[in-house]
Amino acid sequence: MTTETSTKENNSFVLRGIKDVTFEERPVPKLAGPHDVRLQVNYTGICGSDVHYWQHGRIGHFVVKDPMVLGHESAGTVVEVGESVKSLKKGDRVAMEPGVPCRRCVRCKEGKYNLCFEMSFAATPPYDGTLAKYYVLPEDLCYKLPESLSLEEGALMEPLAVAVHITKQSGLKQSDTCVIFGAGPVGLLCCAVAKAFGAKKVVAVDINRERLDFAKSYAADSTFEPSKVSAPENAQRLISENALGVGADVAIDASGAEPSVQTAVHVLRAGGSYVQGGMGRDEITFPIMAACTKELTVKGSFRYGSGDYQTAVDLVSSGKIDVKKLISRKVSFEDAEQAFEDVKAGKAIKVLIEGPK
Amino acid sequence: MTTETSTKENNSFVLRGIKDVTFEERPVPKLAGPHDVRLQVNYTGICGSDVHYWQHGRIGHFVVKDPMVLGHESAGTVVEVGESVKSLKKGDRVAMEPGVPCRRCVRCKEGKYNLCFEMSFAATPPYDGTLAKYYVLPEDLCYKLPESLSLEEGALMEPLAVAVHITKQSGLKQSDTCVIFGAGPVGLLCCAVAKAFGAKKVVAVDINRERLDFAKSYAADSTFEPSKVSAPENAQRLISENALGVGADVAIDASGAEPSVQTAVHVLRAGGSYVQGGMGRDEITFPIMAACTKELTVKGSFRYGSGDYQTAVDLVSSGKIDVKKLISRKVSFEDAEQAFEDVKAGKAIKVLIEGPK
Amino acid sequence: MTTETSTKENNSFVLRGIKDVTFEERPVPKLAGPHDVRLQVNYTGICGSDVHYWQHGRIGHFVVKDPMVLGHESAGTVVEVGESVKSLKKGDRVAMEPGVPCRRCVRCKEGKYNLCFEMSFAATPPYDGTLAKYYVLPEDLCYKLPESLSLEEGALMEPLAVAVHITKQSGLKQSDTCVIFGAGPVGLLCCAVAKAFGAKKVVAVDINRERLDFAKSYAADSTFEPSKVSAPENAQRLISENALGVGADVAIDASGAEPSVQTAVHVLRAGGSYVQGGMGRDEITFPIMAACTKELTVKGSFRYGSGDYQTAVDLVSSGKIDVKKLISRKVSFEDAEQAFEDVKAGKAIKVLIEGPK
Amino acid sequence: MTTETSTKENNSFVLRGIKDVTFEERPVPKLAGPHDVRLQVNYTGICGSDVHYWQHGRIGHFVVKDPMVLGHESAGTVVEVGESVKSLKKGDRVAMEPGVPCRRCVRCKEGKYNLCFEMSFAATPPYDGTLAKYYVLPEDLCYKLPESLSLEEGALMEPLAVAVHITKQSGLKQSDTCVIFGAGPVGLLCCAVAKAFGAKKVVAVDINRERLDFAKSYAADSTFEPSKVSAPENAQRLISENALGVGADVAIDASGAEPSVQTAVHVLRAGGSYVQGGMGRDEITFPIMAACTKELTVKGSFRYGSGDYQTAVDLVSSGKIDVKKLISRKVSFEDAEQAFEDVKAGKAIKVLIEGPK
Repeated sequence: MTTETSTKENNSFVLRGIKDVTFEERPVPKLAGPHDVRLQVNYTGICGSDVHYWQHGRIGHFVVKDPMVLGHESAGTVVEVGESVKSLKKGDRVAMEPGVPCRRCVRCKEGKYNLCFEMSFAATPPYDGTLAKYYVLPEDLCYKLPESLSLEEGALMEPLAVAVHITKQSGLKQSDTCVIFGAGPVGLLCCAVAKAFGAKKVVAVDINRERLDFAKSYAADSTFEPSKVSAPENAQRLISENALGVGADVAIDASGAEPSVQTAVHVLRAGGSYVQGGMGRDEITFPIMAACTKELTVKGSFRYGSGDYQTAVDLVSSGKIDVKKLISRKVSFEDAEQAFEDVKAGKAIKVLIEGPK
Repeated sequence: MTTETSTKENNSFVLRGIKDVTFEERPVPKLAGPHDVRLQVNYTGICGSDVHYWQHGRIGHFVVKDPMVLGHESAGTVVEVGESVKSLKKGDRVAMEPGVPCRRCVRCKEGKYNLCFEMSFAATPPYDGTLAKYYVLPEDLCYKLPESLSLEEGALMEPLAVAVHITKQSGLKQSDTCVIFGAGPVGLLCCAVAKAFGAKKVVAVDINRERLDFAKSYAADSTFEPSKVSAPENAQRLISENALGVGADVAIDASGAEPSVQTAVHVLRAGGSYVQGGMGRDEITFPIMAACTKELTVKGSFRYGSGDYQTAVDLVSSGKIDVKKLISRKVSFEDAEQAFEDVKAGKAIKVLIEGPK
Repeated sequence: MTTETSTKENNSFVLRGIKDVTFEERPVPKLAGPHDVRLQVNYTGICGSDVHYWQHGRIGHFVVKDPMVLGHESAGTVVEVGESVKSLKKGDRVAMEPGVPCRRCVRCKEGKYNLCFEMSFAATPPYDGTLAKYYVLPEDLCYKLPESLSLEEGALMEPLAVAVHITKQSGLKQSDTCVIFGAGPVGLLCCAVAKAFGAKKVVAVDINRERLDFAKSYAADSTFEPSKVSAPENAQRLISENALGVGADVAIDASGAEPSVQTAVHVLRAGGSYVQGGMGRDEITFPIMAACTKELTVKGSFRYGSGDYQTAVDLVSSGKIDVKKLISRKVSFEDAEQAFEDVKAGKAIKVLIEGPK
Repeated sequence: MTTETSTKENNSFVLRGIKDVTFEERPVPKLAGPHDVRLQVNYTGICGSDVHYWQHGRIGHFVVKDPMVLGHESAGTVVEVGESVKSLKKGDRVAMEPGVPCRRCVRCKEGKYNLCFEMSFAATPPYDGTLAKYYVLPEDLCYKLPESLSLEEGALMEPLAVAVHITKQSGLKQSDTCVIFGAGPVGLLCCAVAKAFGAKKVVAVDINRERLDFAKSYAADSTFEPSKVSAPENAQRLISENALGVGADVAIDASGAEPSVQTAVHVLRAGGSYVQGGMGRDEITFPIMAACTKELTVKGSFRYGSGDYQTAVDLVSSGKIDVKKLISRKVSFEDAEQAFEDVKAGKAIKVLIEGPK
């Protein structure tokens, strides 16, 4: 009896349908193989995609058909290790990379496992997320936190890994100038990563003055608030106010907004590099001839891949990036829904859900 | 007297205004430096951009304000060499690379001279083109034709260099599959270059069945004629009819048409590569979320740069590419305007203007 | 009874100690996971490393401690498929990639699985090789042969994948010149791959005139037989006899011989690229200042990785490379030891062992 | 008369033969073209190559045949500008990049002008150096010093550009571990550049404990003093004492010493990267099989190229690197020979020669 009960003791925050969440006691997950570990989840951040599933029940062609546990930005503590696990032991605190690739397809084997055809990603249907007491992951996707890092910071490794991946995609190198559109959590972290990667000047762009002020205090060298003029005009003013000469070397969109994308293309110098990090409308009006004749490199960025999580941990543990400043507040597991409401309302940069205990 | 006359003997085909061309005797150009050579122009191909200047007096922000000699796809014979010239002598037959970079700016010094801030490019205002008896170029922009290559083929090195540059931008490598949109001269040459670079399968796309038939006979492995359905639908059919599995590795647009760009994005596999080679409308509707979540690399391609002309010469002299098949016919210098009319009317793949003699 | 017997019917060619080989009936291997397939081995080529283990019982720090089945260049036919296998079915003929990476380490996940810390490689102690009736591999390491390819050709995909990997490591691109040292099987295949990858000129180098004649008839544009002079002198003559101008773009060593390495360094142009493909003495005298001031890129090449096997299959099936010419002869499984003797004596380019039936 | 005298007022420190230096009044150099500027040289650092020419009259095949002005690590002040100069004016203080490439050869045009076939490099025979009152350079090789940088720091941009180029050649990226052999000026600067480029851990290696102590206080995270044991043994101890796991990601030699090169190869992980920055014996014993089976990338580094000087200026002006700490002392122009003696005797890290006034 006790045993049976205990195997059910996996309190989970479940999305049952559009705007319909609940708590469920789910079975405690078992190790699926000898390289797996079971983690007790300590902190989980809320991401825009979590909120989107909660509000709309889908993102693009990913549709929530069955009840699904939400959450994928987590840090936890090892409570069980598989027989082949070597690098982790019970009690270790880790940042949890929440997507398990197939490891066998062409993309996986060429080093781009984020593009894996059969990825199992937390809180992307049909896979359950991490807002539960327990979660199972392969050892190699758990990144041991150095003593200097808290579990709260550990939960921030996920958005930081997103920003690391975006910035790597941009090819930004020492002495480059960089303009970053959108000063939400990922945009702010992109500012910080761009500085850590050696950017000479980072300009944060947003339509919200308060966010820009925070960006300036956090990691941006300067900020830009676009006017209601054309993209080329905003680009021209951005370049001249920030002394970007013939244009920026790198532009990153972390907003998903059409005017940002357009302005970014016009703000770049010939041969510059653009990365689409933000999610927005499927199609936008795009200044393709400017991109063509300037020979821009335009790349998408999707989640994170080889080395990104480890780089995130290194950036924070070396003191180059401070993620604690982005944590607006922490709430208990029982208040998970309220936390979602607050994030939806834009009342916070990053909210962490604790537990469950 | 004789001398004075002779310095004027440089018959040139001049654009005076929109749709207003004439022949002028211009001064024979002098060597500007010790590394220059003077060439007698033997053959010049007509390019879409020449036709565009003739019809509209401008391309984008390049506006023809003063009379300008047209033409930039030429091969010629060396008639005078500067004192420091080592690799060329009178009588040598060469393909002429028609853009002279400043060699001093950041772009030039980093190896991307096609993005030079102060490029002097033939038949791009305010610089005169090559449809004249004589033209002066630095030695290093003249590519000696091996005996096996004719001067007619030499004139085709320019569009071939364009195709080489586009294909290099795509990063296409051995065994890749490649879809090429637009079966005009550049698209056809992209098909040939893609095959020479090792493409496993090249699919040519056009709305003109006749062009597709030529593409198939020339260098494409298969062809695709889009239907009047959505871009994703055309992409799906293209993939399935050509057994492209999870999508093509590389897509190249040599059409400039919006539906081509859209279909190209949908036809690519995750991590695939797209190059915008064709010129078209400044802005188009672009499926940016597909590009983002598939982490496509989208690049522009502008003219040609380091090594492209030499590669073009090598591809033809090694027999890997046959450019003669693209020469629809040759006309005398006196018939230059008629040749422009014919190209405008789509009556030919590539027309060469001979001389002047 | 029958069943029990049948599980032992896996005739294998086993190395028991130095120069001590035998045939053993080993247990038929079982699928280790749902993605595995069991193959009946049809043809196996003999490689220098097989001969080296046979003669010396070790290669570097890889020491044969327990009896080990030899062989790793094989093609086979699928006889059993795991429950998750999708791309293969019984009767499919495949080239067998004989190294199974861990898929979890940093090297695997960054796309360099040939550098995996826990690679299980056929006929590298302690892992058994493929000279047996049956062999088990994961589905993704079996490359289906198109109808146009024979199983004999399939066995040659292993050395061809080695040559593909070496040539990729060199960064050789269209129009490059390339000098290849050593005209044994791998050197010959490097010549063929370099041509297929677009080399303008391939020079084969060997001290054996007969091998050079074969190389010339096979894939080299020209050949060079070094004299007993210094490496710089041989390099100078090689450059001038083959009109390599300021030096070759790429040099590949497939010989492992010290004079080859030295000559290769001197034969390269500034900025050129060198790959060490051949195995030889642990340490050699190396002209490091020439490599330094010319800013050469020197790379090792170890086995094969992402995409190499597939490229090998594509190169042969597209007709760009003919591997049949390298098959000197085929012997029956019973004559395996004699085949090893012949390869050791240099009596053949490539010998295939058939079966066992 | 006055004019004639004034055109001779270019006091220069001239190497007449082995160990034979003198001061000469040379003609004031004239601008060679409209893009040139004339500089009054303010400070010049002494480099090992200067000392080598002074002691031996040659470096490799570069032989001093005619009297040659020494010096190439300089900063100066603009005193005259050519008619096309736009970015500089009289009185501007600049770091002087002392090598003028031809800008026309294949290497120049592909972005590797440091490998130019016709480079004119200061104090490399037959070209005079910068230890003179005046020196002429093209505008684009003069890097304006921000107000925060002194002319003394400006003179240090040359060795810093060397270190930037070496580190770029290594491909070092965020979170990499790096071992640097040799703690002289270039080695120390490589430590600083590696940290600025994001190295997680930089280990400095030298046989001189005092230098190591300085390295530790300057930019290294830790240090290693090799024992008189084999290279693999030193490598093993280095790895274990510095917790480098499976080996370092990057190794840089700035010593030119054979044991350093050997230890570096053994200290690297599979797939690691090595750069030969230091100059030493032409040939050394090299562990080529270790480099081969670990698939190392080994690169030379020669001087500096596209973007390196600007990056050097940026690194110092952003406060990421402090070059002032490396300036041991400054001497007047009259004491130039004594300064050479002191550098030869190893009495200083970096000595600057002032003027002449």
